[in-house]
Amino acid sequence: MKLLNKLGTLKPPFRISTIFHTMEMRINPDFPKRPDRNKVDALKEIGAATISAELKHIAGIKDSFMMGPKSCALGKTIGGPAITLQFMPIREDYYQDAEEYQNVEEQLHRHALYLAQAGDVVVVDARGDLSSGVFGEMMLAYFHGKGGEGVVLDGCIRDSRKILETGLGIWSRGFTPNYHIQTGIFPFCVNDPISCGGRLVFPGDIIVADDDGVVAVPAKLGAELLDLSSEHAEWEEFSRQRLLAGGHLKRYYPLSDEARPEYEEWKKTQE
Amino acid sequence: MKLLNKLGTLKPPFRISTIFHTMEMRINPDFPKRPDRNKVDALKEIGAATISAELKHIAGIKDSFMMGPKSCALGKTIGGPAITLQFMPIREDYYQDAEEYQNVEEQLHRHALYLAQAGDVVVVDARGDLSSGVFGEMMLAYFHGKGGEGVVLDGCIRDSRKILETGLGIWSRGFTPNYHIQTGIFPFCVNDPISCGGRLVFPGDIIVADDDGVVAVPAKLGAELLDLSSEHAEWEEFSRQRLLAGGHLKRYYPLSDEARPEYEEWKKTQE
Amino acid sequence: MKLLNKLGTLKPPFRISTIFHTMEMRINPDFPKRPDRNKVDALKEIGAATISAELKHIAGIKDSFMMGPKSCALGKTIGGPAITLQFMPIREDYYQDAEEYQNVEEQLHRHALYLAQAGDVVVVDARGDLSSGVFGEMMLAYFHGKGGEGVVLDGCIRDSRKILETGLGIWSRGFTPNYHIQTGIFPFCVNDPISCGGRLVFPGDIIVADDDGVVAVPAKLGAELLDLSSEHAEWEEFSRQRLLAGGHLKRYYPLSDEARPEYEEWKKTQE
Amino acid sequence: MKLLNKLGTLKPPFRISTIFHTMEMRINPDFPKRPDRNKVDALKEIGAATISAELKHIAGIKDSFMMGPKSCALGKTIGGPAITLQFMPIREDYYQDAEEYQNVEEQLHRHALYLAQAGDVVVVDARGDLSSGVFGEMMLAYFHGKGGEGVVLDGCIRDSRKILETGLGIWSRGFTPNYHIQTGIFPFCVNDPISCGGRLVFPGDIIVADDDGVVAVPAKLGAELLDLSSEHAEWEEFSRQRLLAGGHLKRYYPLSDEARPEYEEWKKTQE
Amino acid sequence: MKLLNKLGTLKPPFRISTIFHTMEMRINPDFPKRPDRNKVDALKEIGAATISAELKHIAGIKDSFMMGPKSCALGKTIGGPAITLQFMPIREDYYQDAEEYQNVEEQLHRHALYLAQAGDVVVVDARGDLSSGVFGEMMLAYFHGKGGEGVVLDGCIRDSRKILETGLGIWSRGFTPNYHIQTGIFPFCVNDPISCGGRLVFPGDIIVADDDGVVAVPAKLGAELLDLSSEHAEWEEFSRQRLLAGGHLKRYYPLSDEARPEYEEWKKTQE
Amino acid sequence: MKLLNKLGTLKPPFRISTIFHTMEMRINPDFPKRPDRNKVDALKEIGAATISAELKHIAGIKDSFMMGPKSCALGKTIGGPAITLQFMPIREDYYQDAEEYQNVEEQLHRHALYLAQAGDVVVVDARGDLSSGVFGEMMLAYFHGKGGEGVVLDGCIRDSRKILETGLGIWSRGFTPNYHIQTGIFPFCVNDPISCGGRLVFPGDIIVADDDGVVAVPAKLGAELLDLSSEHAEWEEFSRQRLLAGGHLKRYYPLSDEARPEYEEWKKTQE
Repeated sequence: MKLLNKLGTLKPPFRISTIFHTMEMRINPDFPKRPDRNKVDALKEIGAATISAELKHIAGIKDSFMMGPKSCALGKTIGGPAITLQFMPIREDYYQDAEEYQNVEEQLHRHALYLAQAGDVVVVDARGDLSSGVFGEMMLAYFHGKGGEGVVLDGCIRDSRKILETGLGIWSRGFTPNYHIQTGIFPFCVNDPISCGGRLVFPGDIIVADDDGVVAVPAKLGAELLDLSSEHAEWEEFSRQRLLAGGHLKRYYPLSDEARPEYEEWKKTQE
Repeated sequence: MKLLNKLGTLKPPFRISTIFHTMEMRINPDFPKRPDRNKVDALKEIGAATISAELKHIAGIKDSFMMGPKSCALGKTIGGPAITLQFMPIREDYYQDAEEYQNVEEQLHRHALYLAQAGDVVVVDARGDLSSGVFGEMMLAYFHGKGGEGVVLDGCIRDSRKILETGLGIWSRGFTPNYHIQTGIFPFCVNDPISCGGRLVFPGDIIVADDDGVVAVPAKLGAELLDLSSEHAEWEEFSRQRLLAGGHLKRYYPLSDEARPEYEEWKKTQE
Repeated sequence: MKLLNKLGTLKPPFRISTIFHTMEMRINPDFPKRPDRNKVDALKEIGAATISAELKHIAGIKDSFMMGPKSCALGKTIGGPAITLQFMPIREDYYQDAEEYQNVEEQLHRHALYLAQAGDVVVVDARGDLSSGVFGEMMLAYFHGKGGEGVVLDGCIRDSRKILETGLGIWSRGFTPNYHIQTGIFPFCVNDPISCGGRLVFPGDIIVADDDGVVAVPAKLGAELLDLSSEHAEWEEFSRQRLLAGGHLKRYYPLSDEARPEYEEWKKTQE
Repeated sequence: MKLLNKLGTLKPPFRISTIFHTMEMRINPDFPKRPDRNKVDALKEIGAATISAELKHIAGIKDSFMMGPKSCALGKTIGGPAITLQFMPIREDYYQDAEEYQNVEEQLHRHALYLAQAGDVVVVDARGDLSSGVFGEMMLAYFHGKGGEGVVLDGCIRDSRKILETGLGIWSRGFTPNYHIQTGIFPFCVNDPISCGGRLVFPGDIIVADDDGVVAVPAKLGAELLDLSSEHAEWEEFSRQRLLAGGHLKRYYPLSDEARPEYEEWKKTQE
Repeated sequence: MKLLNKLGTLKPPFRISTIFHTMEMRINPDFPKRPDRNKVDALKEIGAATISAELKHIAGIKDSFMMGPKSCALGKTIGGPAITLQFMPIREDYYQDAEEYQNVEEQLHRHALYLAQAGDVVVVDARGDLSSGVFGEMMLAYFHGKGGEGVVLDGCIRDSRKILETGLGIWSRGFTPNYHIQTGIFPFCVNDPISCGGRLVFPGDIIVADDDGVVAVPAKLGAELLDLSSEHAEWEEFSRQRLLAGGHLKRYYPLSDEARPEYEEWKKTQE
Repeated sequence: MKLLNKLGTLKPPFRISTIFHTMEMRINPDFPKRPDRNKVDALKEIGAATISAELKHIAGIKDSFMMGPKSCALGKTIGGPAITLQFMPIREDYYQDAEEYQNVEEQLHRHALYLAQAGDVVVVDARGDLSSGVFGEMMLAYFHGKGGEGVVLDGCIRDSRKILETGLGIWSRGFTPNYHIQTGIFPFCVNDPISCGGRLVFPGDIIVADDDGVVAVPAKLGAELLDLSSEHAEWEEFSRQRLLAGGHLKRYYPLSDEARPEYEEWKKTQE
């Protein structure tokens, strides 16, 4: 594994041409700027289910749900811009696992974490693999220590117990004791567009993950999405209470004209 | 095998001919009467594992276990007659998702909930789909409010956290943020016989679901099943205690003649 | 979406209430009339690939391809209205295989063939099952003898060699030596709407199947589809020849303005 | 590769020729001796993740992770020598379920439990089957009563709630209400080499299972594995704390020369 | 269920204790005698479909179809006693691929072929593996040269073209260029009972494979099966001809009393 | 969709930044030079099976077999350098199917064919998709016309019959009538490294595909591989003939010292 550095013409962090397939560090530059944290928090508040529906309405995104990664700690919600990491199948003439790398700085998945800032979400296309543990406890302790929001993987982690005890948000296909290159995959590229759980994800997309699952909000749609979904929610809390108390669906969902006065009364009591 | 014609006894809303496939409301009438609630509770007490075995013995039902739906809250047991709901793959000339229905009363899955009474279980053939959320929180708040026991789906729900917080029993393949017609399926028929998790379910079958999974008891077999399984259980509690304390399997399970006097002694101490 | 009640127009044999689940013959009436055979032949000429694209354009049917059934004799094309047959998982309290039926007229899958006329295609929802052979050689000899076009199954046939030797068109998931109720499924309903290979099929839909696979054309769309697709094809034969001879894609597909005079010349030579 | 013949050393009950396939009790003799319990406990302490990595390093075992069985109670760890149990698909001329055995001593899976001693782990090749419950509560109450560590199954258990309440460690593919021979498999052999979750397991292998999953340590490698892995861990606790507090990965993992003095300081404070 | 001990009757090479897992040659002795070749040929004539049905009728074998292996040359039928070969997942402490064996006689799959006689069928449990080619052209040239009937694999072959050109019958899951131990499996045992395509197969079972698929006939049932199936077939050829000519299914299948005189007439013309 | 073309400012090899995800043409430059055609033909002669084994021996490439694509015309062999084409899941804010592109030059998969030269093989990562037909007859008529060797797809083609009639080599997962963007994927990048059938493929790798399947030879290993495999084959033809004639495997494969004189004799007769 040679560390190619044609820095003279490129500037770090960089992506070197991929067609003369010498082993190299495929690291795209960081995206220009982080989204406004208040907006990200507002998106977390809305939740994946409403976002999924709104993305269909405002952008025609039929299905933004990543199928595969599941919450490892029900009740948790995370949000933040995506740092992406792509694994590929190992091909031994190109990639060789020599003592799990002699130079640890050649471990490409480290560099995804180096790029990450507080509030970021690392999204990993691990090809649905169930037998390689993409990250272990030390890597994710570092990521947690620098304020990372969480990790979404179409694959697995190892050292799962210690990682979950830190409180870091993990959405994965499961756990495995194996390490990241123990079986058939290896980290290939950082911050390239990836497919995770059957969805296209760009670096900088805003990820929101909760019990329902993970969605990626295109960065440019975040504001519009917030505007629209705030219109919705107003009477829903009222209706939910009435329904749980035995009210009829026809009357309360959606809010019928008959029930509107009742709702207006209720609203006053809420203030 | 008889050729039945009971059309005279059916009253609308009802299932009508499906061959001139205009879009229509396929809703079969409610089944004649609910089972005795005490019997249902007794079946819940027995549990899915004993029911599965007894259904094989008394009715030759080799495998009554629905493979796919899993308990979303371990420790819970539900029981009740089945209201069935069948989804089909979307075909756009027949079914079109116009703004998620302009007239919400055309949402067929609402009608499954309208039909449901306190103590009922809604069973959904969602075709194993992992990307459409059959019900969301508002729908199931209504169902919970009217006393529904739970929902069994060979598919997913959305708004999972809020739904599970109500305490409603859910057995599903998982969660998704997508809504019920967001990807490839739509509600096609209420109260028709369905296949759920690879098992045939008729409206009115008594559903019992616990940590082990979901079984459907044919309504006419409920009484017989109760009779037989009460015979079993008597010495089992005794044997369980002895086994947990280190007793030998040969002596206590099934109860051997040698252990019977010991059991008789124990029984006296229980009274 | 209308609430239809056309019970007055139905005649036995017919589908009746299924909720009092005595074993019964679930046979819906035949659909009113066969499509014009010339139109069906024109649709066969167009082929599944063009039909699939046109159904998207004229009716918004995103995906009309049945995934699962494959041609058992490459080079063959069939077309005709669908007779549908639905299998369900066996539940032994409801359905029992007594000596493979004592009264063969109770074999429901026979009745699908009885209903079939010359030019029809039998479409079977066998639930993707790979271990029950829906039809054997005698059944399909009869169907072939009466002029049947072919059979499409999301499942298997048995006696495959003798069946294929007759020249009958078969699209299936494969072959099995088992007979139709040998493992886990049984014939449940004739001429009800079914799901085959993940697509909704109504009785009377026009089926077209070739090497590319099987599509169902809604009967009412057949004429429109023919009109539109005839517009397309005119210059395609010319372009194909030029491309195979080394012509450039930009020039010949789609036909560029530069190549149009050349095409006009060629057209004259074809007359 | 040697041609072994140690028949003289075998004592009944034992595995005999299987080629004249009369139904018989296929039970291999117990393995010669249990591993030192202190060593097993040390292996549990190390955990599946480290073991998996070390097995690759010291023995070239690329992937020792059993894919399929998952922890049914996160936070638990078990370890012990493997008693193996192999299921096979039922073939009715050979195996018949007559009233679930008239003579319970013919239930082969009992004998796996009879062989088990305190501290053992029963490992079951249930062929990935999701519809037969290999063990129920009475069997496992007995196993728990005699001090069994846990059960690993590439398949399911029934009576799951009562079993998990005892605290017995279970790694399975899930739960089912069905009993062990209700659908398609039956117990075929005790203490033969098996494939469980895609891994070869010999009787007497030391099983370690935790949240990350299950691994089998060849008995002869246990000591070497313990020696090597104790070398590793020393500075890891220090590094983990620093990383969680925001330290940089390059400095602390692996421990850099720059950070070593800091570590030495820290170590003094730990004593 | 008897506890058999026929150790006295076994002669080496034989299966010995497997619990002290030194690498060894696990080769069970050949089965006592080959079946009468005329009977095997008669079973081939009957075909897999009829055998599958008859095995259910006479022996209660619900499903004798091996799911997975498919005919690689439609139109071919083979039959013969089974030599079995079992693969297991590689575990590197036990099995190591040293230069593809330095001593080729240690290649266990060779020994399956050594045992084979003219007319035998080698049946391989390759665990459904799609990336290891169990046999290549040289091995199967030898098997073909000694008169082998064919090979059935729940796995793949390599050098497929040259193998199929010899005319040897192959039923497999497909082809691969990889050799037999290139990925994750290795040959573990010869002439032990195996699971192939989900069916239990004993050495000496009579295998019949045709376009419909592969079945295993227990050796002791061969004669009975032949007797019964000869009763069937007599009028079937007559009926098939009539059906293909447009005769009605009710009249000709099964042969009705009305059609019997016509059949008797036809029979005379056949002599 | 904007057609970005900044070729004037970029120099080959180039890749346009993908992180500001405007829709763009992701086309890497062609690789520097084609391999010597004689060497490619020699590799075709050797075949995929030998190449797979040799790649393991000379480069440690454990498994070079692409699992998924199968030969659509048994008996054919192709070889040539890889032009790669990668599909990604559709995300509607980024990619919209407007009338199947108004400007056909924006169809990215065309550009893969534009880049291709006589003797090239187009390798497509279609993500295993079974419902989008990557190429149709017109596209591949052009590719055939310019001398293309063939197409390897982890996905499907449409217009399969007409394509196969041209004689172009196709290795695919199957056929579909749908066009390339009809369901869930779209062409994302040309000549980037891809994963096809679970194997890493670089542009310029030498593809060899025959009945056994598809392998990719790293360009730099082609010469070495040819040298080594020519050593092998010499006595194999002799041994194959002897084995087919009934010779013993031990004598002829590998060639034993005893058989060497016989081989030397035979060799003389061959000259």
